Amino acid sequence: MGQPAEQQQNAKKDKKTIYKPRPVSGFPEWLPEIRLVELQWLDHIRKTFESYGFCSIETPSVEELDVLLAKGETDKEIYVLNRLQATEDDAKEARLGLHFDQTVPLARYTAQHFNDLVFPFKRYQMQRVWRGERPQLGRCREFYQCDIDIINPDSLPLSFDAELPAVIFDAMSGLDIGRIKMKISNRKILIGLLDAMGVTDVIGTTRNVDKLDKIGESAVADILTKEIGLTTAQITPILELAMVKSASSKGLSLTPKNAQMEEGISELGFVLDNLSHLPEGSVVGDLSIVRGLDYYTGTVYETNLMDIPEFTSSVCSGGRYDDLAGTFINRHLPGVGISIGFTRLFDVLHHYGRIKGDKKSPADVMVVLPNDDQRAAAAQTARILRGRGMKVEMYHAPQKIGKQISYAEKKGIPFVWFPPFDAAGSHEVKNLASGEQQTVHPESWVVPS
Amino acid sequence: MGQPAEQQQNAKKDKKTIYKPRPVSGFPEWLPEIRLVELQWLDHIRKTFESYGFCSIETPSVEELDVLLAKGETDKEIYVLNRLQATEDDAKEARLGLHFDQTVPLARYTAQHFNDLVFPFKRYQMQRVWRGERPQLGRCREFYQCDIDIINPDSLPLSFDAELPAVIFDAMSGLDIGRIKMKISNRKILIGLLDAMGVTDVIGTTRNVDKLDKIGESAVADILTKEIGLTTAQITPILELAMVKSASSKGLSLTPKNAQMEEGISELGFVLDNLSHLPEGSVVGDLSIVRGLDYYTGTVYETNLMDIPEFTSSVCSGGRYDDLAGTFINRHLPGVGISIGFTRLFDVLHHYGRIKGDKKSPADVMVVLPNDDQRAAAAQTARILRGRGMKVEMYHAPQKIGKQISYAEKKGIPFVWFPPFDAAGSHEVKNLASGEQQTVHPESWVVPS
Repeated sequence: MGQPAEQQQNAKKDKKTIYKPRPVSGFPEWLPEIRLVELQWLDHIRKTFESYGFCSIETPSVEELDVLLAKGETDKEIYVLNRLQATEDDAKEARLGLHFDQTVPLARYTAQHFNDLVFPFKRYQMQRVWRGERPQLGRCREFYQCDIDIINPDSLPLSFDAELPAVIFDAMSGLDIGRIKMKISNRKILIGLLDAMGVTDVIGTTRNVDKLDKIGESAVADILTKEIGLTTAQITPILELAMVKSASSKGLSLTPKNAQMEEGISELGFVLDNLSHLPEGSVVGDLSIVRGLDYYTGTVYETNLMDIPEFTSSVCSGGRYDDLAGTFINRHLPGVGISIGFTRLFDVLHHYGRIKGDKKSPADVMVVLPNDDQRAAAAQTARILRGRGMKVEMYHAPQKIGKQISYAEKKGIPFVWFPPFDAAGSHEVKNLASGEQQTVHPESWVVPS
Repeated sequence: MGQPAEQQQNAKKDKKTIYKPRPVSGFPEWLPEIRLVELQWLDHIRKTFESYGFCSIETPSVEELDVLLAKGETDKEIYVLNRLQATEDDAKEARLGLHFDQTVPLARYTAQHFNDLVFPFKRYQMQRVWRGERPQLGRCREFYQCDIDIINPDSLPLSFDAELPAVIFDAMSGLDIGRIKMKISNRKILIGLLDAMGVTDVIGTTRNVDKLDKIGESAVADILTKEIGLTTAQITPILELAMVKSASSKGLSLTPKNAQMEEGISELGFVLDNLSHLPEGSVVGDLSIVRGLDYYTGTVYETNLMDIPEFTSSVCSGGRYDDLAGTFINRHLPGVGISIGFTRLFDVLHHYGRIKGDKKSPADVMVVLPNDDQRAAAAQTARILRGRGMKVEMYHAPQKIGKQISYAEKKGIPFVWFPPFDAAGSHEVKNLASGEQQTVHPESWVVPS
């Protein structure tokens, strides 16, 4: 020691090797100006969820591996944790994995805290989840999901199935993503029909009906004939049913073949009719929507971006399930939930150039530092503005005014505040967009909207 | 298939085994009423950071292991990720670990995006970090940190060292944590003194001076004599210096022994004098504060909770560093930063019974559902209130009014709204705390504050 810190630094620098960091594929990261938009979106979604009375929960990033695998799902590409400096003791502890969705954690949470929750339990959860998949557009290894679910022991009113699309419409229409279309169906309708016709391979049939949008009617018919072994007499009503689209119960012109199908039609009609306040075209009953079989038992949802036709995957999906947490608690817990694939949505919109980040700072105002003598006074002005709810950066050095203004411009701070340069001076504020400058008072000025 | 879903469910339930989930040690999780307080705290901290013009960034939860280990830190108990279904391809990819702080990610981020950032770069970051340590009160394996840092190439004005405690005071005094005391020092003072006296084991000496608060003056003197081999002539001025406490430059009655010491005294004085607007006792210059040697080069901060004397560890610490990202970029990047150990703070306050969670829902108002005929009208009332910025839950079923009110009480929703029960009815709202009920209009009523 003994050398000034700077000399030591330079000595160190001469010897050191630079490790140039690269982005880690599948783990997105944004510049400040894009992050600012991401935060606005997340804030809006959260505010909407809360405006319907959903409460926040957060669960740990990890669950015990036994919990993650309790439902037998092994296709989710789970990341397992190991301590770099693992000791023998580690082997005695439960193995931990990063959660791959927010539904398994919700099930575990609801079971574990069952006696402390008030039901119906309406919760939202906006966290990162992880899947070790190969990354592609809209599919990351680390991504945010924004989930809402409602859980109630024994039975859950159908009104919640109708509430979720209303929440999602409010949430998503407040983002700058263009038009969306939510497609709603009820799995009881198709499954009831298949049951009435004696179709045994329900999983295979529904999985192929789900492809209608992508490969078209005749290709689906072909597969149902050759692979599932259905007859034309069976295929025709299936495809007829899958083509049904209607915005209300009145358009669901279907003759139920059994009680299950009738129940599905009635439930879907109720859900659609309770969404009639939403703009035309934003919600539609679409019987081609099926989704994964083991999980959903009634209402199902998918959502498409109408103004980005190149991207056909759903950005917000979910549905009704009969038994959330049966593997963790001996209670019957039906629920209904929906999840915004937030990072997918944001990543796709960003990819198509639809995210305009023009502010590198959250500040509304930058206070100029006139000179060192006025530092305390300028800081006091900044505090007054902050106390009145504004976001205020004070410039850090008494540099030339042009340089100070240029900094505000580069960061996208819209207003520059000039505190008095001496005892006789006054406060002025300059709107950088218009160039307009006026005399103002820190106790009364408000940011023009 | 073919059975109604419910029968299948029951059949499944009879056979299944229940895996009763337990909390995972070191990975905290809160009930909704406590989470609501945690969110309010995080919101307040974020709002404060933004009110000073700090921009948000988020970095991935993972970094390449080479990045995490670039500074040679191996004592941080890093969690490494492995895919459960790892293939041969995985071996070709970089190994990933969960970040153990937000400083290494900031260094990597700043180096990687150097050309896209505007400097001075003022960023905040509020994320979870992970350390595979043994958990104890205030020390979790997964925890939030709330960091602010300012980075500038080549040189960074000292005014930023004075800004950080002001930000932290605003952030922390808005939380219900009682009084705090921020202790500030400047490492150049003690190191300058040691240098002037020819003390060679600077690391050993400062590390033991750092224990003054915990073990007292005579114990420290004892160690400095026996372990470091200092003479009484050396120890006396060291301990005299470490006992210096002052709220302003005027009280720093020290005679500098060399230029480094003089610089440190001058810098600390500047920082303290620029914080004179804060309440007495909230900030103090305290020369016993030293912190880790390799990293900090000037100003250092620690913060204690004054109303929880049992908990003596710092809940918010940081300092000035000369070279943020030298391992990643061939630029000299000095910075100053501070970090609120958020989960530590929250966990400790919760442990001491200081977190009162009395709301299990964010809703301001619960709208009663009078009967099924009024469902659409009640939903419309709820939408009007939401449109006016309120958080509104509509009750889900036309049950007895007493049951509906009881639900609002259990969730801690303060107001119950009665929409008209028929065409001739009016809107009324009941304050559950006071029992007061009055006729109101959804277009004009506001939540009393």
